[in-house]
Amino acid sequence: MSAPRNVVIVGLGLMGGSLAKALKRYPHDTRISALTSERATAEQALADGAVDSVLDDARDAFASADIIVYATPVATTLELLDAHAPLLRACRAAVTDVCSVKLPVVTRARSLGLDRFVGGHPLCGGERSGYAAARAELYDGACVYLVGGEDPVAVETVAALWRAAGADVEPIDAGLHDTRMAWISHLPQVIASALGATLSREGVAPAQLGPGGRDMTRLAASSPALWVEILRANRHDVVPAVRAFAAELHRCEEALAAGDDEQLSDVLRRARDWRMEGQ
Amino acid sequence: MSAPRNVVIVGLGLMGGSLAKALKRYPHDTRISALTSERATAEQALADGAVDSVLDDARDAFASADIIVYATPVATTLELLDAHAPLLRACRAAVTDVCSVKLPVVTRARSLGLDRFVGGHPLCGGERSGYAAARAELYDGACVYLVGGEDPVAVETVAALWRAAGADVEPIDAGLHDTRMAWISHLPQVIASALGATLSREGVAPAQLGPGGRDMTRLAASSPALWVEILRANRHDVVPAVRAFAAELHRCEEALAAGDDEQLSDVLRRARDWRMEGQ
Repeated sequence: MSAPRNVVIVGLGLMGGSLAKALKRYPHDTRISALTSERATAEQALADGAVDSVLDDARDAFASADIIVYATPVATTLELLDAHAPLLRACRAAVTDVCSVKLPVVTRARSLGLDRFVGGHPLCGGERSGYAAARAELYDGACVYLVGGEDPVAVETVAALWRAAGADVEPIDAGLHDTRMAWISHLPQVIASALGATLSREGVAPAQLGPGGRDMTRLAASSPALWVEILRANRHDVVPAVRAFAAELHRCEEALAAGDDEQLSDVLRRARDWRMEGQ
Repeated sequence: MSAPRNVVIVGLGLMGGSLAKALKRYPHDTRISALTSERATAEQALADGAVDSVLDDARDAFASADIIVYATPVATTLELLDAHAPLLRACRAAVTDVCSVKLPVVTRARSLGLDRFVGGHPLCGGERSGYAAARAELYDGACVYLVGGEDPVAVETVAALWRAAGADVEPIDAGLHDTRMAWISHLPQVIASALGATLSREGVAPAQLGPGGRDMTRLAASSPALWVEILRANRHDVVPAVRAFAAELHRCEEALAAGDDEQLSDVLRRARDWRMEGQ
């Protein structure tokens, strides 16, 4: 299936802006309308040729859409789904989002009777945000998780969109997705922020870091507002992950304090053996 | 001052091998002899043109040296300084090392009467080790800390060596160096290893990680043997750093568990503001 023809992207931040730019790289027969209230961003995206039009009225934007992509933070997405539900039920478009937490979003969509909603989560992004950070290559080779699609045509439309943007899609259960993200994405974010806050308190300057320290604190530059939303939405999965990590860290601390090289080496070896699988 | 003419590098791992390759990039009038008992590495380094000769007898190697660089792990460096002390006192070379912990090394050198010893620590490297990972660019723009030099000529010789290899040098007190490293390098290593061990225990595959998760666990691939030595040697500084981080992490965990967005946001904002200084 080729790329959808009429694409509406709600929000032109890092994710929405990069999606528009990615789709515009190739001669797809795709028309992109953006729905955003940020005038400066809208003008920049039009000037870049990333979008064909910018609308601020959802009714106009949705009428002819094949797919509508909410590229907005979790809380905003939930609010917009509530507000747009009558329009979404009335139009024929597939509807998707890019939130890092899926259960609250697909649950809301289901309760609103949005049968053509398919949750999406591109596992990429990073610490930068906003249209200024958007780039056409963001999704190249990235995994996009697809969640909770009940309408096979809508699922295929969403999958075709992401493939056209350079990504691979992987269907996953919403609960399983959120649990997995707690470990592989939300826990690392909490750790990076806690490390950044610790080094800040200690008076270390970021310029003093070596390559390893820079890697370990890069995520600390992420948007606090965005992440408080994500972590709150997934806290029932994130808290156990943070506790499991804290217990492993405590084993290291005890081994170090006691001069127990065997115990310390055990943690370092398990971590190394695990990480080398991924080389 | 130009690069030293006769350089002896003890050990051809990541650090020693990269130093040899870095010095050989430019038409310096520098002759590099390596002291190593690893035949395969020695032959490879000779074939690469990274070294001019490989010796396995310290007496021959040191006789005409202008500078001797111990590019060996902490415990090996301490053992070799003990074993080589009579030869080092008898020759005219400046002597240096590359260990990540400086107080034990400069203390040992002083107690052995090695007046021309200047401790060195290039703040680069990363998770890879061994000659196979060595590359000429490793030190380009890196900061090399110089510690405890009492002989100004030796200090200038060591500084000239690192500048010729592409690095910048920064003099620092040994104790201050080790405390700083506990925060900016040793703590991040412990965290990366504890995170790797946690994800391993949880059954997550490294291939499932996104870019952020990969950044946060890259250091977990580091050599356990090398790091147990470093952490043991600096544990009086590392334990308080791990405890301070654990306390900050615990604040995040409590805030998450209690749904206290204000407290969580405070940690994330402090970390973000700090990290953005370094952008």
